[in-house]
Amino acid sequence: MRDISVFSGSAHPDLAAEVCAHLGVPLSPTRVSRFANDCLEVQLQANCRERDVFLVQPLVRPVQEHLVELLLMCDAARGASAGRITVVMPHYSYARSDKKDAPRISLGGRLVADLIAAAGVHRVLAMTLHSPQVHGFFSVPVDHLHARRELAAHFRHHDLSRTTVVSPDLGNAKEAAAFARMLGAQVAAGAKQRYADDRVSISSVIGEVTDRDLIVLDDEIAKGSTVLELLDRLRQLAPRSIRVACTHGLFSAGALKRLSEQDDVLEIVCTNTVPVPVEDHTDKLRILTVAPALAEAVRRIHNGESVSALFDAPRNA
Amino acid sequence: MRDISVFSGSAHPDLAAEVCAHLGVPLSPTRVSRFANDCLEVQLQANCRERDVFLVQPLVRPVQEHLVELLLMCDAARGASAGRITVVMPHYSYARSDKKDAPRISLGGRLVADLIAAAGVHRVLAMTLHSPQVHGFFSVPVDHLHARRELAAHFRHHDLSRTTVVSPDLGNAKEAAAFARMLGAQVAAGAKQRYADDRVSISSVIGEVTDRDLIVLDDEIAKGSTVLELLDRLRQLAPRSIRVACTHGLFSAGALKRLSEQDDVLEIVCTNTVPVPVEDHTDKLRILTVAPALAEAVRRIHNGESVSALFDAPRNA
Amino acid sequence: MRDISVFSGSAHPDLAAEVCAHLGVPLSPTRVSRFANDCLEVQLQANCRERDVFLVQPLVRPVQEHLVELLLMCDAARGASAGRITVVMPHYSYARSDKKDAPRISLGGRLVADLIAAAGVHRVLAMTLHSPQVHGFFSVPVDHLHARRELAAHFRHHDLSRTTVVSPDLGNAKEAAAFARMLGAQVAAGAKQRYADDRVSISSVIGEVTDRDLIVLDDEIAKGSTVLELLDRLRQLAPRSIRVACTHGLFSAGALKRLSEQDDVLEIVCTNTVPVPVEDHTDKLRILTVAPALAEAVRRIHNGESVSALFDAPRNA
Amino acid sequence: MRDISVFSGSAHPDLAAEVCAHLGVPLSPTRVSRFANDCLEVQLQANCRERDVFLVQPLVRPVQEHLVELLLMCDAARGASAGRITVVMPHYSYARSDKKDAPRISLGGRLVADLIAAAGVHRVLAMTLHSPQVHGFFSVPVDHLHARRELAAHFRHHDLSRTTVVSPDLGNAKEAAAFARMLGAQVAAGAKQRYADDRVSISSVIGEVTDRDLIVLDDEIAKGSTVLELLDRLRQLAPRSIRVACTHGLFSAGALKRLSEQDDVLEIVCTNTVPVPVEDHTDKLRILTVAPALAEAVRRIHNGESVSALFDAPRNA
Amino acid sequence: MRDISVFSGSAHPDLAAEVCAHLGVPLSPTRVSRFANDCLEVQLQANCRERDVFLVQPLVRPVQEHLVELLLMCDAARGASAGRITVVMPHYSYARSDKKDAPRISLGGRLVADLIAAAGVHRVLAMTLHSPQVHGFFSVPVDHLHARRELAAHFRHHDLSRTTVVSPDLGNAKEAAAFARMLGAQVAAGAKQRYADDRVSISSVIGEVTDRDLIVLDDEIAKGSTVLELLDRLRQLAPRSIRVACTHGLFSAGALKRLSEQDDVLEIVCTNTVPVPVEDHTDKLRILTVAPALAEAVRRIHNGESVSALFDAPRNA
Amino acid sequence: MRDISVFSGSAHPDLAAEVCAHLGVPLSPTRVSRFANDCLEVQLQANCRERDVFLVQPLVRPVQEHLVELLLMCDAARGASAGRITVVMPHYSYARSDKKDAPRISLGGRLVADLIAAAGVHRVLAMTLHSPQVHGFFSVPVDHLHARRELAAHFRHHDLSRTTVVSPDLGNAKEAAAFARMLGAQVAAGAKQRYADDRVSISSVIGEVTDRDLIVLDDEIAKGSTVLELLDRLRQLAPRSIRVACTHGLFSAGALKRLSEQDDVLEIVCTNTVPVPVEDHTDKLRILTVAPALAEAVRRIHNGESVSALFDAPRNA
Repeated sequence: MRDISVFSGSAHPDLAAEVCAHLGVPLSPTRVSRFANDCLEVQLQANCRERDVFLVQPLVRPVQEHLVELLLMCDAARGASAGRITVVMPHYSYARSDKKDAPRISLGGRLVADLIAAAGVHRVLAMTLHSPQVHGFFSVPVDHLHARRELAAHFRHHDLSRTTVVSPDLGNAKEAAAFARMLGAQVAAGAKQRYADDRVSISSVIGEVTDRDLIVLDDEIAKGSTVLELLDRLRQLAPRSIRVACTHGLFSAGALKRLSEQDDVLEIVCTNTVPVPVEDHTDKLRILTVAPALAEAVRRIHNGESVSALFDAPRNA
Repeated sequence: MRDISVFSGSAHPDLAAEVCAHLGVPLSPTRVSRFANDCLEVQLQANCRERDVFLVQPLVRPVQEHLVELLLMCDAARGASAGRITVVMPHYSYARSDKKDAPRISLGGRLVADLIAAAGVHRVLAMTLHSPQVHGFFSVPVDHLHARRELAAHFRHHDLSRTTVVSPDLGNAKEAAAFARMLGAQVAAGAKQRYADDRVSISSVIGEVTDRDLIVLDDEIAKGSTVLELLDRLRQLAPRSIRVACTHGLFSAGALKRLSEQDDVLEIVCTNTVPVPVEDHTDKLRILTVAPALAEAVRRIHNGESVSALFDAPRNA
Repeated sequence: MRDISVFSGSAHPDLAAEVCAHLGVPLSPTRVSRFANDCLEVQLQANCRERDVFLVQPLVRPVQEHLVELLLMCDAARGASAGRITVVMPHYSYARSDKKDAPRISLGGRLVADLIAAAGVHRVLAMTLHSPQVHGFFSVPVDHLHARRELAAHFRHHDLSRTTVVSPDLGNAKEAAAFARMLGAQVAAGAKQRYADDRVSISSVIGEVTDRDLIVLDDEIAKGSTVLELLDRLRQLAPRSIRVACTHGLFSAGALKRLSEQDDVLEIVCTNTVPVPVEDHTDKLRILTVAPALAEAVRRIHNGESVSALFDAPRNA
Repeated sequence: MRDISVFSGSAHPDLAAEVCAHLGVPLSPTRVSRFANDCLEVQLQANCRERDVFLVQPLVRPVQEHLVELLLMCDAARGASAGRITVVMPHYSYARSDKKDAPRISLGGRLVADLIAAAGVHRVLAMTLHSPQVHGFFSVPVDHLHARRELAAHFRHHDLSRTTVVSPDLGNAKEAAAFARMLGAQVAAGAKQRYADDRVSISSVIGEVTDRDLIVLDDEIAKGSTVLELLDRLRQLAPRSIRVACTHGLFSAGALKRLSEQDDVLEIVCTNTVPVPVEDHTDKLRILTVAPALAEAVRRIHNGESVSALFDAPRNA
Repeated sequence: MRDISVFSGSAHPDLAAEVCAHLGVPLSPTRVSRFANDCLEVQLQANCRERDVFLVQPLVRPVQEHLVELLLMCDAARGASAGRITVVMPHYSYARSDKKDAPRISLGGRLVADLIAAAGVHRVLAMTLHSPQVHGFFSVPVDHLHARRELAAHFRHHDLSRTTVVSPDLGNAKEAAAFARMLGAQVAAGAKQRYADDRVSISSVIGEVTDRDLIVLDDEIAKGSTVLELLDRLRQLAPRSIRVACTHGLFSAGALKRLSEQDDVLEIVCTNTVPVPVEDHTDKLRILTVAPALAEAVRRIHNGESVSALFDAPRNA
Repeated sequence: MRDISVFSGSAHPDLAAEVCAHLGVPLSPTRVSRFANDCLEVQLQANCRERDVFLVQPLVRPVQEHLVELLLMCDAARGASAGRITVVMPHYSYARSDKKDAPRISLGGRLVADLIAAAGVHRVLAMTLHSPQVHGFFSVPVDHLHARRELAAHFRHHDLSRTTVVSPDLGNAKEAAAFARMLGAQVAAGAKQRYADDRVSISSVIGEVTDRDLIVLDDEIAKGSTVLELLDRLRQLAPRSIRVACTHGLFSAGALKRLSEQDDVLEIVCTNTVPVPVEDHTDKLRILTVAPALAEAVRRIHNGESVSALFDAPRNA
């Protein structure tokens, strides 16, 4: 059987190392050079020929740098005659560009999926895509893991008898409902209206939140504006307690600081699909690791075992 | 400029004829033959060479027959040197297969989009796709119209001061919210759990419905099981009135009859994107025509004018 | 070596089971669901990952249902990371659409071959294609078996000293000649003129048939109109006896009944590449099995052994 | 409207010039250079940008030189931003490689069709393909003309009351039957067995030839071995007269001389789809021109008019 | 005829505006948004439908941002049904990655060309590619202009009787020789050895430089390390005067300041294919505009006129 | 592990046999037939199914015959279900067509690379491409060996203390410099101007050659015109001795004879990447074998070992 080789781009080497540790394989070195004219060049510094190559790179800030770096890594692996190339992309940030809600705009979620295929990738391992439909943007097979299980395991240690999971957005409400079912909780959602990327307005909350223990759940928290505005509305409705959870804790622009400064927010939970900015760490923050799940998925992909067994897929709509 | 030629498959010739009437062009004849071995053959019976060809076919029952027929029409147009081929698909039923929520299932929404491209189509004109992400399944440009405007025009004749738009499903709640905003109404949603395709269970309704005038809105009503079950839950919450609306009124398996027999349902509104079964027509039914909108879109596509002006696209999330 | 997995669509599960029995592998279960809107969804219910997947489906009535089902099976296998996907298509009915003999018609034989490739198939195993050129319509490798050997083995039990093989059609005469050579017999052919799909007229018979033992040979018999008309012409020429043989015994529209009611037809021979309608079975009917040949071909494809050794390929024109 | 530009490769400039004369457009010059290392380079010596470019090149001896030259012409036209590229290929000799009748052989008819598409061609204008199925080998639209009409016009000047059209080969018998129907004649065919490319053996003739006026018809005559052997068999059956006709008169290896030396062959008829070797011209030879038909087809392709009106397409099987 | 629309990315709007001024068409507005998660979204803010769209973007620092932005612009134009999309890329910086001189490295020049094609571009207008072979990396037609003419026009105002054009690198020597021939000058070259991207060493100069007026010519100057090292070697050989010229004056990391501080460098000449850093402008700097050449090329591409007439293409090796 | 199968086309069977001898595997037989109409057909006469197939064919005179033959071999291997197809192309003569230096010319180097991919090849093993950029013309992985090592090993037996490597052409000077560094020698180059393919003129020599031991190095010598003209110029500069070396010794049109007749040429060195014409062999000729290097590369490709270790790749520019 072809051996496995794991390379990391510069986006999140710690996660790659942790995945490798779980797999019991070394992380092969990658050299990324920047030419004087700012172009990148990648050299994979271990033999790829006929090997089962995994390239670990979440598309986090600076996204464009990390995306082009990833495409160059794919190209290098292809040119070096890799037997199979799997991109391990714990955060596919371009999934947020998944619809045409204005004329003549780019559809980044589909375009980047096509670019990755054009660079010679055979398969993708993704985690908690912004919407499940994004799976269908890829022309190569995708294994789509959810961090739902890791998050649920964490909250199961709490008393969940009066819990409501709150989605900041109706578009994400279905995912919140699925999570609520896992916890035996209720669901609610903000009916958000977005005026611009950073100006959002929660016009109303539908569902029961008064005197409930709330878990505000989103797939990704970047600046945190949406969550902060939702918190304002929720407070008016007198909840019993508030916790905030997400899979991808980008926490840009001081979001983590601002969130932790909200007195009524008891806890902020995320995973390490992306590198959480260290300088803003607070006592309220809990970072759950997805490395064991990713490592197990990589192991199964390599061995040709079922990956679907890894994800709880109760069929619900 | 290349002339326009419009052909209809056998799925909905009435709509094609109505579109042509609005355009002021004749509907060109199509011959569909069935061989003794049950294979189909299509002949487009008017010159296509270098012309701007539009093929009208919603994917309605029998879906597989109509799909293969459409693909053969595309192939015939391509082989006959059409200048450009646009598929006018007022109902893309396979859009419902838009995610992998079980292991090893087909993703029909993407596959059929790929088959259409493989058959040589240059662009698609669609209406009210099940989810906006399905747009991104196509590798060819898509003009995506919404029947929201036709539906809103209809309801604006009512007193809307106490209206709530109810989505049977959290997954469609965002679309319901957008429609509610057009009417200045509130939004609510059923938190549905699907056990199998035809066994659904509305576990709860989130949002305010008691003593409200309800418009239950879905993109497509086929057997109507989901809506009927939602009606049961809504009744428990004592609404003031109930109306049912959808874009694609498939109304299979006697759905129209069952819905109209609900005494508290005052009205059932749909459009003619699909042929509504005539035998079940009732006084409660209002069928709105989308032919003017489709004809205007075809005219603009042909003339190279902006189609986006046709759809109200307030950017909201 | 990757393991083998065989799935059957709903077209001919008996043949798939028989092939599996010969291979000594289980037939893996397939679930085909029909949504309320008539769309199909396929779930392959056994792990496909990195396995050597074979999908058995002849394109028989209802052809469009079985074709789309097959394409969805391919898509599901691809999405489930099958190592290799081989379509076992004992009857490729669209092969009859192999030429453009009228303006602006579809070329179904090529289109469907392209659709199958677009659905992610790596190779095709076919049997007795309508014309040998159809092989070239596929962009993926095709193993093309002939049922000629099974049919010849059957007829070798007869006295063949005065036998003439009769093709109903000049277009199939070459295949009839090849079969005649295998039996040491002569060849003749009807010079058929087709006015429409179900109105044919045999204008003349060329070759010697008077006082001969005739085997009327066609690749496929559906409604049987052509054969019945040929029988009329042959009778005028006073043959000694008549037998009818084909590979694909579709026998639609009561064809089997009508053929067996012809007193001078001694025997009707076909194979089980397609399910022969049970209700019309007669004593004159002999169904030869192709399962051993298909199983052996599957085994060799899986093991990387030569398949060409399976077919008698005397190079003749 | 984009202007037309016609270029000729080195295979048959006389035909290209004749087509241009009929079109009333100049033949644009092409420069073909041969490097010291025997590689070819093509320069199209007139502006192609956005023009409707036609490249005339039958694939005649030396076939490989003319094929690569044609592909380089296509590449040059593509690189020079031609608006549309149509290959006018009056003889597609690789069409003879249309089936896999031996293991592990190339399928030249499909491969060369793919190479032409890979070189950037948008459409093909072909004449009398070896089998009608070859049309389906091309992924780009093909206009397929038949020289049948030119040949029939010639023979209509004879008394046809006792004429039989004889195909040397059962595989071509259908085409012979179509031609016979145009003349109101009968049809017959040799049942040929090919042992190797140049060793053929006509095992029998089926159909009536004794005391008939025979027209031996083939699509292409190269060495003429098949026709000469057929003549031997026909003589044994005492025909009244013999004429030989074909579309593509390659007449290699002295074939024309050998045929004309047959005393009982009254006439040899071909067309100028290929350059007929001048040194072997005889009084028995009649070369019919296809230039008017090709020019009319080019004119219609350029103007977007129907080409199918050009070919008599009675639908017959 | 389709109208022209010109959009600029954020890399060099001044050049785009200057090109538009020469063309007499307005520069259409582009909106580039950055989401909170650092992903980009592009909206082309003028109708593109069926129009002849030109997207102006040199790949300058920050290269990855500008590249992804360009790809999103292409995607937006494609989705908005542009009639044709031409990328105007005055500087294709990834052309420097044009060979595999180390194992397992990326080949950025080819990869980025493939990405551009994958994003739906129909043609590319480039200027002074690092090596002429890079033209062949693109699968779409490329018009390749050279700034050689603008540079030569500038230097023709000098006394050129004792001039030698010096290439810092043997790989670029051919281009320097072509430039020298335009000026009637001699040629010389540094035989450079590169140890790493920013550690270069000129081992020797071949050709005559002593007591000559030197024009050091490179396609691109970024950090300027190579040129500075060459200057050191040249000084040892006692030239009469030194001027420095390049097409793409990136002048990163204070290169312009360092170069202008060399007392014996009389003049630094570049073009505006890229935005030259304003803060480092010196009296020694001459920036030549390529806008007229680009505008004329765009005009000819739009009108379907020959672009090759624009570039002096004496065929020399 | 899949077994290896090596086939040779008719271009250079001796080299294929020598490579096989080094590998210890038999050379599998290939049958190339020429039809009466001059078309080729290839049959690979050993099982290819799932095997690791290597096809050996340098593109030497007659280039077009050998190219089409190679493409047919690829097609046959693909159709025969080869597991992987590697083209071993020791001389890729079309690499000389690597740039567009005149309007509307073909770019053969890229086109032929695309044709090879279209014929189903998975990878290419090439040797000493005319320019390193040609690597990037291929969309499939290329292993690019250099014969530099073989040539250097030969010359290391000489006294190299006063040696200068001379490139006839500035475009090849970088390669000459790399070779010179391997030998510890200096470098010089002719500044050639080409007026037409066979009329070249060396306008000057840059670098030191007087009283030096010269090795004139080119990648390919065909007619030898360039080298002969360079020799004329070099003689005027009084070198101490002259040797001529190249990788691909095509030596067409009596080039070998003419070169060996130059009294001051002490030695002519080439490799057996191409068959050197036997009739012109002289005592001055040394043919070095590349078979061991090719065999080792094939072995490593087959076993999935690093090939880059085979080539000395000091990174220099």
